[in-house]
Amino acid sequence: MLQPQDIIRLEDEAVVVLDQTRLPAERVERRCTTVAELIEAIRVLAVRGAPALGVAGAMGIALAARSAPEHPLGMRQYLAEQGALLQAARPTAVNLAWGVAEALAELDRDVRGVQEARGRIAARARRIQDEEVARCRAMGRHGAALFGERPELMTQCNTGGLATGGYGTALGVVHALAERGADPHVYVPETRPLLQGARLTAYELAEAAIRHTLVTDNATGAILREGVVQGILVGADRIAANGDTANKIGTYNLAVLARHHDVPFYVVAPTSTIDPATPSGAAIPIEQRAAAEVTGFGGVVTAPAATGARNDAFDVTPAELVTAIVTEHGVLRAPYDLRGERPDG
Amino acid sequence: MLQPQDIIRLEDEAVVVLDQTRLPAERVERRCTTVAELIEAIRVLAVRGAPALGVAGAMGIALAARSAPEHPLGMRQYLAEQGALLQAARPTAVNLAWGVAEALAELDRDVRGVQEARGRIAARARRIQDEEVARCRAMGRHGAALFGERPELMTQCNTGGLATGGYGTALGVVHALAERGADPHVYVPETRPLLQGARLTAYELAEAAIRHTLVTDNATGAILREGVVQGILVGADRIAANGDTANKIGTYNLAVLARHHDVPFYVVAPTSTIDPATPSGAAIPIEQRAAAEVTGFGGVVTAPAATGARNDAFDVTPAELVTAIVTEHGVLRAPYDLRGERPDG
Repeated sequence: MLQPQDIIRLEDEAVVVLDQTRLPAERVERRCTTVAELIEAIRVLAVRGAPALGVAGAMGIALAARSAPEHPLGMRQYLAEQGALLQAARPTAVNLAWGVAEALAELDRDVRGVQEARGRIAARARRIQDEEVARCRAMGRHGAALFGERPELMTQCNTGGLATGGYGTALGVVHALAERGADPHVYVPETRPLLQGARLTAYELAEAAIRHTLVTDNATGAILREGVVQGILVGADRIAANGDTANKIGTYNLAVLARHHDVPFYVVAPTSTIDPATPSGAAIPIEQRAAAEVTGFGGVVTAPAATGARNDAFDVTPAELVTAIVTEHGVLRAPYDLRGERPDG
Repeated sequence: MLQPQDIIRLEDEAVVVLDQTRLPAERVERRCTTVAELIEAIRVLAVRGAPALGVAGAMGIALAARSAPEHPLGMRQYLAEQGALLQAARPTAVNLAWGVAEALAELDRDVRGVQEARGRIAARARRIQDEEVARCRAMGRHGAALFGERPELMTQCNTGGLATGGYGTALGVVHALAERGADPHVYVPETRPLLQGARLTAYELAEAAIRHTLVTDNATGAILREGVVQGILVGADRIAANGDTANKIGTYNLAVLARHHDVPFYVVAPTSTIDPATPSGAAIPIEQRAAAEVTGFGGVVTAPAATGARNDAFDVTPAELVTAIVTEHGVLRAPYDLRGERPDG
């Protein structure tokens, strides 16, 4: 299995990420020595996944702190600006803003100087990653308890270690099942347009020697109709206070198909993904990405030049289609009131 | 709009097809001078779509008749063998077998010799194409009457002139709406794995200057949830006697989504697609295609080498999810009993 420091780590002079745009063909690291470089890495999805974006946001503030003005007030203003830029890199995942805010909060503590603030922010950023992984392991335990031996599962996108800075959310449940010896089998939809299922989830499952079958996003209904899948496990980019869940485009299709076939549909996400300030899914901004992601793939243009495309990066699954939300604290069931659900400490 | 003879035509020495594997990048014809070459063109989907396969099957028999033994009995046996090979090229679409059988039936008539049989078979094959286009225009009229002005529609795969040898089934309804001046707008799912939506449907709509928006197969639910789509129009590769419909993989997903959102779901297909000998969808063979279509695209491998894939070319939509079946005879509604629905003359 991929280790957390292989996926994202804070060094003295850089945030180093495993470049997920190059997987599975090659395993290459991308060194971001400035916030601008990190923002670019976030924009092109070299680092991605809501929990991992939280880690990246905090590490980005730690990176910015190195080049911040030496005066406390100047530093504070500079880091707030850099934090706003980081947050704007991707609008849907609330974790990115959360990680930035957690790192900035170190400035509110009683620090004796700029140097100490830098140290505290760096330590906080690294701790967020450790805590995220610990939360994933807790979610994995809670989620794995929902299934028996040799479960047949389905997921969407990538919610593994790559998406979280280690272990994974929905895929963390699969890892936990495998560690328990339950021998899970996972149907992996490729997840167009950027194929995180084919490129990243299949890669992680192959690395961990977990049984899996890649399918197109079109094949999910036919498979569910066969009646063997016992649960669909997805992550979340933002969960509103009422349980409405924004996640990778296509998640809503799976939720509707799950309901039609009476298959439990589980959202697996740390409480850092819950946004109490968002009352319902209608208030979640949906990132629109370039049409070229849809009109082509891997440098191959697939559509006529005259054809326009729409490319919502996410969709919203209403809470009534969510069987349960698995967080690090346990398994929550409807009706959801998530205003008090926040990370520990 | 593409003309029938641009898509497939029978010449003296060849069946000539527009190579759909090369669209939309280039418009190249593929000349098949033997049945083996035509079978290869069918297998790689250079020519595809249930009604077009019916035309191709009949034209294939006409091509075979040219090199058949000069003795009537020998000719009959040879053409039956060639017909069996043609039929086996793709197992799901009943039209291919139907077109072959229609052409072979000319041998049962009172023919005076091998030369006359050849002429009759060729004429029958060309007539099947003409009739298929006429049926498409009739379906287009019946289907267009279901919608008002500026309708918002969604489709799947390609069911246009390219799929039928001219005009189209589900896309024929769109053409008929455009000809009526209704100014339709069509959401076009790209239709992985082979992207017939992106490559072919978008191409036909762009050629006909009909408004359309390309989306990934994952985006269909989010769009339907917006409540603007007034109907989903799909084709069929085989319709069982009870109305269960085999069509391109992903059609079933759309049917379930349509039901969840109260959007009418129409199957548009000529009666040559109905197989009275198939009582229900459970009896329809589903073609399994190569895993490489899922693990990559356009020469780009997207999944790890260790990852296996499943690639059903079609799925089955149960009749209870089909709002109506539009044939050349009119609009049929549930409960379906299609045993008597056959092409005229």
